[in-house]
Amino acid sequence: MTTIISSTPIRNGIDTAQVYGTLDVLRAQPEAARFEFRVRNRWIDGTHSRSTIHGFWGAGAEDVSRAEPFVVDASEPPVLFGQNEAPNPAEYLLHALAACLTTTLVYSASARKVRLTEVTSVFEGDMDVRGCLGLDDAYRNGFTQIRGTFTIKGDAPAEKLRAIVENAQKRSAVFDMVSNGVPVAITAIAE
Amino acid sequence: MTTIISSTPIRNGIDTAQVYGTLDVLRAQPEAARFEFRVRNRWIDGTHSRSTIHGFWGAGAEDVSRAEPFVVDASEPPVLFGQNEAPNPAEYLLHALAACLTTTLVYSASARKVRLTEVTSVFEGDMDVRGCLGLDDAYRNGFTQIRGTFTIKGDAPAEKLRAIVENAQKRSAVFDMVSNGVPVAITAIAE
Repeated sequence: MTTIISSTPIRNGIDTAQVYGTLDVLRAQPEAARFEFRVRNRWIDGTHSRSTIHGFWGAGAEDVSRAEPFVVDASEPPVLFGQNEAPNPAEYLLHALAACLTTTLVYSASARKVRLTEVTSVFEGDMDVRGCLGLDDAYRNGFTQIRGTFTIKGDAPAEKLRAIVENAQKRSAVFDMVSNGVPVAITAIAE
Repeated sequence: MTTIISSTPIRNGIDTAQVYGTLDVLRAQPEAARFEFRVRNRWIDGTHSRSTIHGFWGAGAEDVSRAEPFVVDASEPPVLFGQNEAPNPAEYLLHALAACLTTTLVYSASARKVRLTEVTSVFEGDMDVRGCLGLDDAYRNGFTQIRGTFTIKGDAPAEKLRAIVENAQKRSAVFDMVSNGVPVAITAIAE
């Protein structure tokens, strides 16, 4: 009898055994797939605000894995009337997009048994601020386009590595949201 | 002859004289309205990546106001195969949205001579992770919807304060991008 010893399930820092176990749980209990993420924001002064990020609903329960909340500031540079207290919101959107595609491609590579040695990316967004400053409605408020360039290295042929980047675009939550949009409902309570 | 001394142009931490001066410059030199924001991201391990945010193009020149880059991490909680090294990308998208609407409504209030005393908000996004985990294509990868609730206080009637929140949705760059989507072009370089 031959004993087959499986290689370690940790690949690229992802516990693939945990991933496959989670997928099995979600197949059996699809209601566990419902997540609700949350951010609380408070204006500080001028262009400066601060978000607190702590709990979320997911896997059938309120998550309690974070002992302390994350605190993340946003502001603007002087040319947009702030004092560089933090990155600006449009830069955070690019960060969210870059990070989500990166995490998604690492999941994808791990599932395909590819060991990655480097993943870097540069994201750029073009904006004409005549839109958001209310000077000319011919210009939209946000970016007209976003360009992202990944450099990816690992123990697979270049074609397979490029396919992993391609596949990440089909599964990334933030890529979907930024590419396709999401309905946003805003309520205001004034006192 | 009566001398009219204007009140201080600083309102809610926004230098409204600078704002109006900038609008005049952009009317005279519309090419100065072109901005390009950038983020560089590097995968660290597992779900963990790190963005560096430094220069940008705007107001007709490469911005040099930031002596040091901002460094912002992203990761995932254990239930999504990370170790809570940082907020996750979907939470950063909510942060970007909350912060952009907040800054935009502070600009708007300042232009309307309203002094704000408090602006807080809670943002929530609903996701069924069967989409992004590749279990069921009936579910999209990103949020199906986002809800934001602002509490706003200041020296104006409740109706005017609510109108300021309403107006922010017409001018916020990130609200536009998240609501309507942006074309994203991804390139992969594999070595």
